[in-house]
Amino acid sequence: MKPVNVGIVGAAGYSGEELVRLIAGHPHTNLTAVTSRSLAGQPVVDVMPRFRGLLPADFTFTTSDSQALAERSDIDVFFLALPHGVAAEYAEALVAAGKKVLDLSADFRLSSTETYSEYYGQPHPAPDLLSQAAYVIPEITAADWQNAKMIACPGCYPTSVITPLAPLLKAGLVDSNGIIVNAMSGVSGAGKKLAEDYLYCERNESAKAYGVPKHRHLSEIEEQLSNAASKPVIIQFTPHLVPMKRGIATTIVAKAKQTGVDAIYSAWQDAYGQRPFVGILPSGKTPDTAHVTGTNRIDFSAAYDQRTGNVIITSAEDNLLKGASGQAVQIMNLWLGFPETTGLL
Amino acid sequence: MKPVNVGIVGAAGYSGEELVRLIAGHPHTNLTAVTSRSLAGQPVVDVMPRFRGLLPADFTFTTSDSQALAERSDIDVFFLALPHGVAAEYAEALVAAGKKVLDLSADFRLSSTETYSEYYGQPHPAPDLLSQAAYVIPEITAADWQNAKMIACPGCYPTSVITPLAPLLKAGLVDSNGIIVNAMSGVSGAGKKLAEDYLYCERNESAKAYGVPKHRHLSEIEEQLSNAASKPVIIQFTPHLVPMKRGIATTIVAKAKQTGVDAIYSAWQDAYGQRPFVGILPSGKTPDTAHVTGTNRIDFSAAYDQRTGNVIITSAEDNLLKGASGQAVQIMNLWLGFPETTGLL
Amino acid sequence: MKPVNVGIVGAAGYSGEELVRLIAGHPHTNLTAVTSRSLAGQPVVDVMPRFRGLLPADFTFTTSDSQALAERSDIDVFFLALPHGVAAEYAEALVAAGKKVLDLSADFRLSSTETYSEYYGQPHPAPDLLSQAAYVIPEITAADWQNAKMIACPGCYPTSVITPLAPLLKAGLVDSNGIIVNAMSGVSGAGKKLAEDYLYCERNESAKAYGVPKHRHLSEIEEQLSNAASKPVIIQFTPHLVPMKRGIATTIVAKAKQTGVDAIYSAWQDAYGQRPFVGILPSGKTPDTAHVTGTNRIDFSAAYDQRTGNVIITSAEDNLLKGASGQAVQIMNLWLGFPETTGLL
Amino acid sequence: MKPVNVGIVGAAGYSGEELVRLIAGHPHTNLTAVTSRSLAGQPVVDVMPRFRGLLPADFTFTTSDSQALAERSDIDVFFLALPHGVAAEYAEALVAAGKKVLDLSADFRLSSTETYSEYYGQPHPAPDLLSQAAYVIPEITAADWQNAKMIACPGCYPTSVITPLAPLLKAGLVDSNGIIVNAMSGVSGAGKKLAEDYLYCERNESAKAYGVPKHRHLSEIEEQLSNAASKPVIIQFTPHLVPMKRGIATTIVAKAKQTGVDAIYSAWQDAYGQRPFVGILPSGKTPDTAHVTGTNRIDFSAAYDQRTGNVIITSAEDNLLKGASGQAVQIMNLWLGFPETTGLL
Repeated sequence: MKPVNVGIVGAAGYSGEELVRLIAGHPHTNLTAVTSRSLAGQPVVDVMPRFRGLLPADFTFTTSDSQALAERSDIDVFFLALPHGVAAEYAEALVAAGKKVLDLSADFRLSSTETYSEYYGQPHPAPDLLSQAAYVIPEITAADWQNAKMIACPGCYPTSVITPLAPLLKAGLVDSNGIIVNAMSGVSGAGKKLAEDYLYCERNESAKAYGVPKHRHLSEIEEQLSNAASKPVIIQFTPHLVPMKRGIATTIVAKAKQTGVDAIYSAWQDAYGQRPFVGILPSGKTPDTAHVTGTNRIDFSAAYDQRTGNVIITSAEDNLLKGASGQAVQIMNLWLGFPETTGLL
Repeated sequence: MKPVNVGIVGAAGYSGEELVRLIAGHPHTNLTAVTSRSLAGQPVVDVMPRFRGLLPADFTFTTSDSQALAERSDIDVFFLALPHGVAAEYAEALVAAGKKVLDLSADFRLSSTETYSEYYGQPHPAPDLLSQAAYVIPEITAADWQNAKMIACPGCYPTSVITPLAPLLKAGLVDSNGIIVNAMSGVSGAGKKLAEDYLYCERNESAKAYGVPKHRHLSEIEEQLSNAASKPVIIQFTPHLVPMKRGIATTIVAKAKQTGVDAIYSAWQDAYGQRPFVGILPSGKTPDTAHVTGTNRIDFSAAYDQRTGNVIITSAEDNLLKGASGQAVQIMNLWLGFPETTGLL
Repeated sequence: MKPVNVGIVGAAGYSGEELVRLIAGHPHTNLTAVTSRSLAGQPVVDVMPRFRGLLPADFTFTTSDSQALAERSDIDVFFLALPHGVAAEYAEALVAAGKKVLDLSADFRLSSTETYSEYYGQPHPAPDLLSQAAYVIPEITAADWQNAKMIACPGCYPTSVITPLAPLLKAGLVDSNGIIVNAMSGVSGAGKKLAEDYLYCERNESAKAYGVPKHRHLSEIEEQLSNAASKPVIIQFTPHLVPMKRGIATTIVAKAKQTGVDAIYSAWQDAYGQRPFVGILPSGKTPDTAHVTGTNRIDFSAAYDQRTGNVIITSAEDNLLKGASGQAVQIMNLWLGFPETTGLL
Repeated sequence: MKPVNVGIVGAAGYSGEELVRLIAGHPHTNLTAVTSRSLAGQPVVDVMPRFRGLLPADFTFTTSDSQALAERSDIDVFFLALPHGVAAEYAEALVAAGKKVLDLSADFRLSSTETYSEYYGQPHPAPDLLSQAAYVIPEITAADWQNAKMIACPGCYPTSVITPLAPLLKAGLVDSNGIIVNAMSGVSGAGKKLAEDYLYCERNESAKAYGVPKHRHLSEIEEQLSNAASKPVIIQFTPHLVPMKRGIATTIVAKAKQTGVDAIYSAWQDAYGQRPFVGILPSGKTPDTAHVTGTNRIDFSAAYDQRTGNVIITSAEDNLLKGASGQAVQIMNLWLGFPETTGLL
């Protein structure tokens, strides 16, 4: 099989670093270009020394002009690991040039430009392209996404919430009203940002809620869950920062429509029983981020509380893999016709 | 003022260590005895090397026979830092001998022996003494607790939940139905227990829920909140372990009875405005465990979500201080007539 | 190519877990048996939940009787991840049955039974087999090791010290007298041992020296460096525990025989320039464990201090990979004729 | 006793924060002013929320003009927690105005302006004042330091090295040649600096050497040890960063002039046996930063290695307390005639 040439745009951050690792190690792809405005000209292994030996010593970050990238006939697939608002410009140029684009930013995750501007504080940068982008959680999204022009890859918190909840809402097994979500994220979720809040001495031995009550990812969670439930779903979502590098642990409380967890496990088994990256744990066993970091897996389980009539769902994933770059590569595999797990085990 | 002689029974664990520190440094107390079955005969500073210089090098752990302790005419006040089920035997002997007893175990926290046996898996060990014990959160419990024969000191999670919620339930500002509590605890909350689960390599870079859906502390939380609300309150409570030594961050979601947070802040101001160990943070500022560990303070704030009609309350405390030993000393101060903050700032 | 069947004996610990991962993911091996006395009968994925999806759910730990294992005609290669003193019995039975054995314990690392009993406090358990075992650091040991009956895989600290130092001693570039080594290890170096010292709350926010002045690994370091120098080398070695899961950072100070680092870098280039798992960093750039954990690489660099005439060498490796299981698989690859990096990138 | 009014200049960092805590809690001082250019106008408790309740809510950072501070007749004592190069200007103005000044920067630690410019890369900013400043380790410096116009408080690494070594060099118990020092520091040693290197995700699960071979603190260590030895002492000093907030663990290897550690322990006992902040641990017991963080104590012990003839000395301290602000307050206590431990236990 002829390898596919891949470019990673805006690869300076933690998600970008994981993309570099995955694409460089993927048996069917060539890592052809890695761009970063701020790092252009620097060897990638100087910035990401883990990759010494994996990448040539002279493989450098390049500039990331959108038109120049669009004209590169030697690259077929682009991952965009850019901030929201910036990604759209690249997506437009690259899609116009017929490239396959997987965007890890928030720019194409919401179908409504109004919701986008409400949550991201600016007008949508490319409304015309929006309808041609597919939001894809590979285990959930209907198969015709593969005809889309570009892919909006899901956010880290949304993946941890939507994956376990969507089949239950679809099957009407939990009440679509009154769902409460609390999530704990490792610090890499904030990116490689130079802010006092992310210094080692500020985050070690610290746990706190933030983004109360309207974190940006809420918009994406609600849209997807509303689609699953076929009615508007409003969520109470509270994210927290805890002192670890990576990993998201999420706890969802929803009113059950029946006693016990049998129907829930059946729905999960139907939806995910054959999927390689979903771990359905038995009721009573709560997932641990330590068991999924470094993997593309999401684990979850459910318990029923007869005192409250609630079902308590807990999930765990690696925010940089199943929550970002791993899932993006999983989508690429399916989009290009490779086996789903290629380069991800 | 003649100092009060204090004994700490079962002081081998992390709460015991904090009690040793606080009582040894307290201007009005003498640390007269520190007991531990397993450590009897060992100098305290060998087990707790932080206290070299603070304690005499030859101050040793002694055995902890309940009768022998009850007969010690040189000790007036005892803290029990023993496991539940064990504490009661000591409490009975010491109270019978006229000693003042502050129990940090769960044995006297619940008024119902049925609830005790449901949650702790054994018959209540001292039902007759139960009615003479006062459960005390000093900022909440009515002042006549000072006439009790002994004190049941609150649990760590319960303090973090009850302190912010009780005034709101009492004033009818939040719905007593459907309250959802998620809490994250540092690993010291599990005590100094030799179990694989508490090894450094298992807990570092790990976040997970546990005790789903019926953690033992739930019984205590529900009893106190029911008292505050004057009606039964059923809570959905999910605790989590996160990689830090100490600290609890708690997030409470409750249905508001009015829009906005003004009434809530008024109720808090009335209840706690003059109390030295309660930090009422402005709405929009979430408390951080890093800002309260090492102190006896609990911080909290509230935000109103007009989309859901919920109020989101977040609190932070040091599980070993305001959640255990610090609060116990605070109670002792009030019981013995010392200023509340003595030895705690 | 027909895959080689591999058994891992005593796989309950952290090194064992890495072996399971590497052998299960290796393209030319089958993971045929995983044994553990204490875990026999339990599914491997219950004990090592990271491997859900990688291993069949019903793949269980088996008992580890040495004779029974020796009689298994379906297994060709055995890794022993057993405590010293215990490994020898298995090695004897398995070698006698013609199996290829890679021992990760200390039992066959020292050529002298006297040194073994001095450092390990017991008579050598299998002196007859000792002469048939080869101690192998693949980048250093002369190629005829491949004819040995069994392999003694190096310890974690020794790999971090011997790899950078051996070529320099061999070439006479540093004084063989007066070498000072300080090393910092992550907590997994102590294994999955239930001792108070390894609890999260004891190790977090803690740094300390231990094993002063005669850690067991010293015997192995000195033997190998004496071989390299062709004269006795006595080392001052001080290991330290620091709060991280994995990684070893080692700092070596030796008297230089010439000014500058050019000769040192030449020697390193000659010895390791073509080796995939050795990272020779430029002088002035110190290696960081964070850049090698999860890899089988060892990174090092050197600086010359004209004020003291010393060369300061700093190295970093993953104690569980290049320092244990990764290097064992690297050795297996070479022993069985696979490319050195197979299953390790 | 009339309390002494104290100003802290440049209090925005971690050492400044500790000074605020210690001075605000000190029974004989008033915290009168806390200055910071960048934070002027902000309430201190907004920046340092640990101090809510300890400081008035409206106690704000003020600007830090050196002349204006010198003219404040209501302040008697100033701590300077400023960068080197900046502190000198303040020291000059304040000393000229007759204020007592304790400088935590490096500006007055070295007696030689040549060494200063060699290590700090700029001319000494106040050579005239240099001779009037005393460098004080209170357990070591001869008593007449109390007549100095100002105090240079020692650096964190230097305190951990000089305190155990000085009496041994003075008594000729270790060779003054060939001393090797390795030290591990928590991340707060770098200050509250916004650099990628100090982000949580960069420092967690990472250990590495830095500042090889000529860290700035080396100049100070060598000057003090040369004084103690009455001859030039050249040290090989390698500092390391390890993932913890605070604490320094230091390991010193020196050639012993006699066998065993008896003479060493005698010298330590003579020098420090009566000093409250020095913990002399028995040989064989290595100090642990976890046992000294939060205290003003330095712990150390020694072991003799008959194989090498070396003595191995290991020490532990809190870099922000005994290594910085705690020791500064200890010095202030002695300077002002308060008991040495006031406000420090």
